[in-house]
Amino acid sequence: MGIISGKEFLDRLDQLKNELWFDGKKIEGNISEHPAFKGILETKSSLYDLQTSDGLIDEMTCFLPEKKERIGLSYLQPKTKEDLKRRRRMIEHWARHTHGMMGRSPDYMNTVIMSFASSAPLLHDRENCFPEHIQSLYDQAMKHDLSFTHTFITPQVNRSQMNITTSENPISAKIVDRNDKGIVIKGARLLATQGGLTDEILVLSAPRFYFEEDEAFAFSIPSNTQGVKFICRESFVLGESAFDHPLGSRYEEMDSVVVFDDVLVPWDRVFFYGDAETANGFLAASSFNAFSYHQVITRQIVKTEFLLGVSQLLVDTINVSEYQHIQEKLSEIVTGLETLKALLEKSEHDAMLDGCGYMRPSLIPLQIASTVFPKIYPRFTEIIQLIGASGIMTIPTESAFDSEIKEDLDHYLQGTGINGKDRVKLFRLAWDLTMSPFGTRQTQYERFFYGDPVRLASRLYQCYPKEKYVKAVQEFLHVKNDSSI
Amino acid sequence: MGIISGKEFLDRLDQLKNELWFDGKKIEGNISEHPAFKGILETKSSLYDLQTSDGLIDEMTCFLPEKKERIGLSYLQPKTKEDLKRRRRMIEHWARHTHGMMGRSPDYMNTVIMSFASSAPLLHDRENCFPEHIQSLYDQAMKHDLSFTHTFITPQVNRSQMNITTSENPISAKIVDRNDKGIVIKGARLLATQGGLTDEILVLSAPRFYFEEDEAFAFSIPSNTQGVKFICRESFVLGESAFDHPLGSRYEEMDSVVVFDDVLVPWDRVFFYGDAETANGFLAASSFNAFSYHQVITRQIVKTEFLLGVSQLLVDTINVSEYQHIQEKLSEIVTGLETLKALLEKSEHDAMLDGCGYMRPSLIPLQIASTVFPKIYPRFTEIIQLIGASGIMTIPTESAFDSEIKEDLDHYLQGTGINGKDRVKLFRLAWDLTMSPFGTRQTQYERFFYGDPVRLASRLYQCYPKEKYVKAVQEFLHVKNDSSI
Amino acid sequence: MGIISGKEFLDRLDQLKNELWFDGKKIEGNISEHPAFKGILETKSSLYDLQTSDGLIDEMTCFLPEKKERIGLSYLQPKTKEDLKRRRRMIEHWARHTHGMMGRSPDYMNTVIMSFASSAPLLHDRENCFPEHIQSLYDQAMKHDLSFTHTFITPQVNRSQMNITTSENPISAKIVDRNDKGIVIKGARLLATQGGLTDEILVLSAPRFYFEEDEAFAFSIPSNTQGVKFICRESFVLGESAFDHPLGSRYEEMDSVVVFDDVLVPWDRVFFYGDAETANGFLAASSFNAFSYHQVITRQIVKTEFLLGVSQLLVDTINVSEYQHIQEKLSEIVTGLETLKALLEKSEHDAMLDGCGYMRPSLIPLQIASTVFPKIYPRFTEIIQLIGASGIMTIPTESAFDSEIKEDLDHYLQGTGINGKDRVKLFRLAWDLTMSPFGTRQTQYERFFYGDPVRLASRLYQCYPKEKYVKAVQEFLHVKNDSSI
Amino acid sequence: MGIISGKEFLDRLDQLKNELWFDGKKIEGNISEHPAFKGILETKSSLYDLQTSDGLIDEMTCFLPEKKERIGLSYLQPKTKEDLKRRRRMIEHWARHTHGMMGRSPDYMNTVIMSFASSAPLLHDRENCFPEHIQSLYDQAMKHDLSFTHTFITPQVNRSQMNITTSENPISAKIVDRNDKGIVIKGARLLATQGGLTDEILVLSAPRFYFEEDEAFAFSIPSNTQGVKFICRESFVLGESAFDHPLGSRYEEMDSVVVFDDVLVPWDRVFFYGDAETANGFLAASSFNAFSYHQVITRQIVKTEFLLGVSQLLVDTINVSEYQHIQEKLSEIVTGLETLKALLEKSEHDAMLDGCGYMRPSLIPLQIASTVFPKIYPRFTEIIQLIGASGIMTIPTESAFDSEIKEDLDHYLQGTGINGKDRVKLFRLAWDLTMSPFGTRQTQYERFFYGDPVRLASRLYQCYPKEKYVKAVQEFLHVKNDSSI
Repeated sequence: MGIISGKEFLDRLDQLKNELWFDGKKIEGNISEHPAFKGILETKSSLYDLQTSDGLIDEMTCFLPEKKERIGLSYLQPKTKEDLKRRRRMIEHWARHTHGMMGRSPDYMNTVIMSFASSAPLLHDRENCFPEHIQSLYDQAMKHDLSFTHTFITPQVNRSQMNITTSENPISAKIVDRNDKGIVIKGARLLATQGGLTDEILVLSAPRFYFEEDEAFAFSIPSNTQGVKFICRESFVLGESAFDHPLGSRYEEMDSVVVFDDVLVPWDRVFFYGDAETANGFLAASSFNAFSYHQVITRQIVKTEFLLGVSQLLVDTINVSEYQHIQEKLSEIVTGLETLKALLEKSEHDAMLDGCGYMRPSLIPLQIASTVFPKIYPRFTEIIQLIGASGIMTIPTESAFDSEIKEDLDHYLQGTGINGKDRVKLFRLAWDLTMSPFGTRQTQYERFFYGDPVRLASRLYQCYPKEKYVKAVQEFLHVKNDSSI
Repeated sequence: MGIISGKEFLDRLDQLKNELWFDGKKIEGNISEHPAFKGILETKSSLYDLQTSDGLIDEMTCFLPEKKERIGLSYLQPKTKEDLKRRRRMIEHWARHTHGMMGRSPDYMNTVIMSFASSAPLLHDRENCFPEHIQSLYDQAMKHDLSFTHTFITPQVNRSQMNITTSENPISAKIVDRNDKGIVIKGARLLATQGGLTDEILVLSAPRFYFEEDEAFAFSIPSNTQGVKFICRESFVLGESAFDHPLGSRYEEMDSVVVFDDVLVPWDRVFFYGDAETANGFLAASSFNAFSYHQVITRQIVKTEFLLGVSQLLVDTINVSEYQHIQEKLSEIVTGLETLKALLEKSEHDAMLDGCGYMRPSLIPLQIASTVFPKIYPRFTEIIQLIGASGIMTIPTESAFDSEIKEDLDHYLQGTGINGKDRVKLFRLAWDLTMSPFGTRQTQYERFFYGDPVRLASRLYQCYPKEKYVKAVQEFLHVKNDSSI
Repeated sequence: MGIISGKEFLDRLDQLKNELWFDGKKIEGNISEHPAFKGILETKSSLYDLQTSDGLIDEMTCFLPEKKERIGLSYLQPKTKEDLKRRRRMIEHWARHTHGMMGRSPDYMNTVIMSFASSAPLLHDRENCFPEHIQSLYDQAMKHDLSFTHTFITPQVNRSQMNITTSENPISAKIVDRNDKGIVIKGARLLATQGGLTDEILVLSAPRFYFEEDEAFAFSIPSNTQGVKFICRESFVLGESAFDHPLGSRYEEMDSVVVFDDVLVPWDRVFFYGDAETANGFLAASSFNAFSYHQVITRQIVKTEFLLGVSQLLVDTINVSEYQHIQEKLSEIVTGLETLKALLEKSEHDAMLDGCGYMRPSLIPLQIASTVFPKIYPRFTEIIQLIGASGIMTIPTESAFDSEIKEDLDHYLQGTGINGKDRVKLFRLAWDLTMSPFGTRQTQYERFFYGDPVRLASRLYQCYPKEKYVKAVQEFLHVKNDSSI
Repeated sequence: MGIISGKEFLDRLDQLKNELWFDGKKIEGNISEHPAFKGILETKSSLYDLQTSDGLIDEMTCFLPEKKERIGLSYLQPKTKEDLKRRRRMIEHWARHTHGMMGRSPDYMNTVIMSFASSAPLLHDRENCFPEHIQSLYDQAMKHDLSFTHTFITPQVNRSQMNITTSENPISAKIVDRNDKGIVIKGARLLATQGGLTDEILVLSAPRFYFEEDEAFAFSIPSNTQGVKFICRESFVLGESAFDHPLGSRYEEMDSVVVFDDVLVPWDRVFFYGDAETANGFLAASSFNAFSYHQVITRQIVKTEFLLGVSQLLVDTINVSEYQHIQEKLSEIVTGLETLKALLEKSEHDAMLDGCGYMRPSLIPLQIASTVFPKIYPRFTEIIQLIGASGIMTIPTESAFDSEIKEDLDHYLQGTGINGKDRVKLFRLAWDLTMSPFGTRQTQYERFFYGDPVRLASRLYQCYPKEKYVKAVQEFLHVKNDSSI
């Protein structure tokens, strides 16, 4: 088949009957009809339909050599810079459709799977590693246009560097048994966005300071595998009205804790296990960072464009463009936007073929963007609040505009060249973007997307090639590398 | 009577039948039972009861000379520095009861009314000014322990400096008629916190660049005066569970637009009218700023203490106190807290008797605090989010902890020395404080409490006495004031 | 001739006998031997020699079609993107030779002259405009490898927006007469870097709010024109020792006030005059910004690389790379460096042919870089001071290291793997870069290079195309451009 | 005698013949006549004279009970809050005389000696501790009005936490022998401000992570003790003209490395030795921090007042007070100034008698001020540069104003209501304050006065009492201290 329609996506998901716990209850019936998930699944469904829409099919899909069926372009393994640009356009289309608000649009995880497959050869001949299972998952995913969630991090029980937990009753998911059918996993993992709303769940141990061997593994299994539970947080869908909650009603993705109750992962689903070195090394050596950052930053640029549009529309609506401090705030957003664009383009221009034959975007510019965005995004949401001022609190609901006080509201809440209803619509958007549970979760999501900001900076420092600059200074000073007496 | 109980407060309010519009419907029945207002009114009721509670009655109330009934200490006109300190202790008690979360606890408006009365003599012998009506309102308020809301600002239609609106159908509330009974008001006013939830509404025209005479006035009328409508925004009470929404369920105050439909304000309720000069000058010359800032900053200190407690408890719970950047963040909060305290105390130490015989706190230190707090409060909420990280998204509901997955949650979500339920309770508080609609509204409220931050800085610059420092430099340089050739 | 040697440059300058006032005295004798100018002129001389050095001649010079003589590549009018990249490489060579410390290396002004010539056609058929004089100056400059200074701004007497000075005795240079030989200029101009150290001085009225016609003009004249005086500030060359003042002894460029005492500017040197509209419009419409920003940002990148090298060498020398806050600070510099590079490259990738047939770098990315650099450069100098700490104050002189206490110094001031002398050499460089009069003047220079930072932000806001982003939001909300009732 | 005159100070110093190395030469002859030290010594001399000047003698000096001679008030051990205020006024007088520019005015070290004596009883009955020697030094110092420098820190060879140096040939000063006459010290110490310009040098080992016993000691010896060498950095006196270098010519204090060449410290000069626990504990337990911070912050407030004066005079001179961003910048300085004042006053109001019977200012507010000032002072110098803009580069010398171009300069460099000479005088002051070697050294000095800013924040966090705030949150949540399952 290759590419699925929105309806196929929903039907398949409804049939999976994943074990999803919401507000103390196990979800029964079709998940696509549940108030907490309806909006996001509808939006996701529309994304699948976008792939095959008339105008976009050629930019969203492609044919693999010697294959007759189209596949989603997010699965394409790029071999040229032009491939990279095609990937970017595809990502932009999906991101524009959701204004960059869906962190886990299908292209994100498809890109991750693609990057794993592209780097699977790195695992050849390593003990307890099964690169062929990665390739096989990639083939299946592409063929069936599978959807994924993932979980990389462990529960936040104790973040001290000195903390090493060993427990009979594990908290962090670990291998508690292995047998001829596969490995058995028990424990929990954080924080699966769209957990339970996808066909598959990819589980991987992210690098860390100290590792028990039993906590080092990677695999992907169907979301409805026996013993897998997704436990949701409170829902941030506050209502169905697109006037009242223009973003939350459409894009709230949900996050969940994943619990593994002695889950059997069949051998043919295991990528590697019991190998801390691989767990610590594979992500860094693979094209995972390069390709996933390329997807993420493309989406974040689209999101920044949306914030710029909202900011400027607020400025117009209350007519404050003459103020210098307003101009400075807007120019901050403009500066952020153009900086991200320049970095993304540089990563494409400087792309190089990696050892496996794929065209990897240059990582440094993407890393820079990934340290910049978590700082500027929260600031941009603050700018919107600073522009909106009291207006962002003056937000009656849609019902009020449909009631007998409608005329009062249209009159008294009007803006510059705009009636009260449209003005409130805009300010509600500004609120939903920056101050609603949906909006603040977006801020937190972007802030921590790439991990702890402090560590990001350390990592950038450590991997950046500084030697030639040091050497130039040493030459200028006629100082040698080791001049000690 | 002098002091009312919580029950008296609720009963009186229920009987008023103020015209309150919520979600397109006019409130019918007892407002104290309405889901959107129940929580805040219960909290407010408990504040009234606090006044007469055993341990606090002597710190919360006092006797006026030659009177037999106790009055609330928030009505006390201070004549000594000791009076100021008594006022501070009273404010602290109320603020601690609500952790500084209730911007409009009764002492705020009582203080405003007290400050107006204390400066009423400034209006003697000015045309169209009625200082005796202020005094009379103050007497009534004290006697009946009246509750108030106020509205000082105009709708945000067009904030350009050049904008001067004149319209047949006014947007901003103005005098459209005056007759032998009083003045008639038509138009709207922003943004009455607790609008409709109080006995009275105080309306005053705040100073501005350009004034129509008809927009310059001040008065107070009962909230249920014919033609007064309060139109609410969306409610930020997300539910009744104190586990799920520990702050929103108790402290959500609501903001409303006030519409005046040809409202007759009787003469004996008018403080002044039709006088732009008075509107521009009275607030600044009166003790309004000194006394109200004294109340507000006391409350903000209590709030900052609460944030410090939450931050440190988060740090303990995930055991991150060893990290330098965590220590820096916490020391930022400590620095803010101690700075505010030092400024507040300085305002008391430097207090002086004003022309009307009342002990005014020194304004400069309070003004400094008022430019500092709107910057540090949002930063402190950001610090909480930065500490909380993914934990602040891992927030299942109370129902989940009462269901069959309770044990999973208690185990997998445990913190350092704390079970899952208590840990989630804490993180939900962190979320409600900084990321829920309640929390972000608090941030916006504090950010704009004293007005536009940019203008606050300008005003501070302009009123600060800089001459002696300039002169010292001129003397050092032997440069004269005017040395031009 | 086309390209001059360093010696030719010095000889020609010595012969000009420009009227230069330094410390109350008129310079007599060869300027190239004066202690205040010797260092910079020697460095400049070495830059001219670099043009024809063996390894670089092909990257530093080129042939014009049908010409036999080489010209400096800084004069090349780019017609392709490859031309732009050649220009960049040439700029990099010169900048590396001086570590980006010479703001007015010859390529800067050569680029300005080239940009004027490239846009001269815009002045065709405008009254009082002489595009042919620009072309002619460009031809002469190229032919003789002339050196230039310029002055665009007026004395800082009164910066109020309301200030309009008219005076018998002008302060700001203006046309006081025009006759058949030319225009006569009287008054002063700020702040000519290397004023008096060049063959020519280019004078142009930068756009401003209010213009007298008599203050609107542009011309270039020889620096030794009768009546032109250059009045120097204090010199920041603190001594000749390259150990003690590694930067100041080589790169101190001097700034001067230019006084015009009824200076006759011959007609064939006038570009335009008496035309406020042209003065306000030409710079913006021409390729001046695009080409000069391209030069400046290339140099600033080289400078940033130097700062990164110094920072990292400091870190190595006192062995502090393990500290998280050190890593964060260095990663800030890395982020700045890569951001500038990405923006510069984007400006080249997005370059387009302008109306006159030349390949203009895209202006927006360059403008972004020009708002970013003035903020990050001072911060980077602060980072160097923060890393250096007390070491940056522990700076004995070269003489001390040549005296009998040499061994004490080498021992007690040693660093990690480096003896005292080399360590102090490095810290003296850090001091000269950020804390000496030379260093702080560099900071101020970069901070204001592109003009007042506040206005830069306003200008960026105003010229940035925001419409499409606003429109996308309007479409999302189904809000129209003008929905007022 | 008790109090010395300026002349006595200079004569005594000239006679000491301290071994001072400057620019590779040992100072011979009277140090008070040496160009590098003349200015500062003259200023210091004027400070001593100030003690006995007519108007101030009663505020600068006092009588001890049962003594007939006056002593300097900086030696007074405060026993009441009024004593503290007297001390503050005395500090202000000296600080005002030097505009806060002399970090080591006599009162600083006198206060240190006084604090040591006041806490000497803490060392009673501890091994290798001699509290009586501290008392004796204090008595001598008071009696002879001795001047001091001190050195607390070790050379910056390797700042890694892991670094532990042991060496035959010590770098950091340590005890290499002890005999019946005293202890013998070899090695170096950083960075003695005014080293060699005082009667005595106080040496103390500041607390640190890892200590060799041999590096833990405290003593005071005459500066001219055999084997003590002071090695100066480059001088920042750039010339004698007070027009050209208004601050450097008067207040440049010099910093020096102190080398101990087998220096014998007589037993009666040793306070303690060979005791890491005491070295780590005494400073913290003593009143050293409380009293010395009280002195320092008083001086820093006076300095901030001076910066405010300079800033406002710049604003007036170029008439830019109408700009919002200028107003914001000035209000930043105002906010800093008032914050420091409030904290200082709080430390006095909250003062308490310590275990030794002296009135200690409350430490927390002083600690807060000490984390605030190192951040705001550099920012305020930046603000001055931002206001000064190009003017701060337009600084001809005094000679130029005495030459034949004087009239040009007076005319063309005039400001708003000020002639060129006075205007340049002011801008030269702004330059000397923020951009000259003197000025930038001041910035670095204030930035690191209290130690590494990162560690300051950590220390503040660690010592601040947070428990009650944590407990309030726990009570609000009904969460216990240890709820783990």
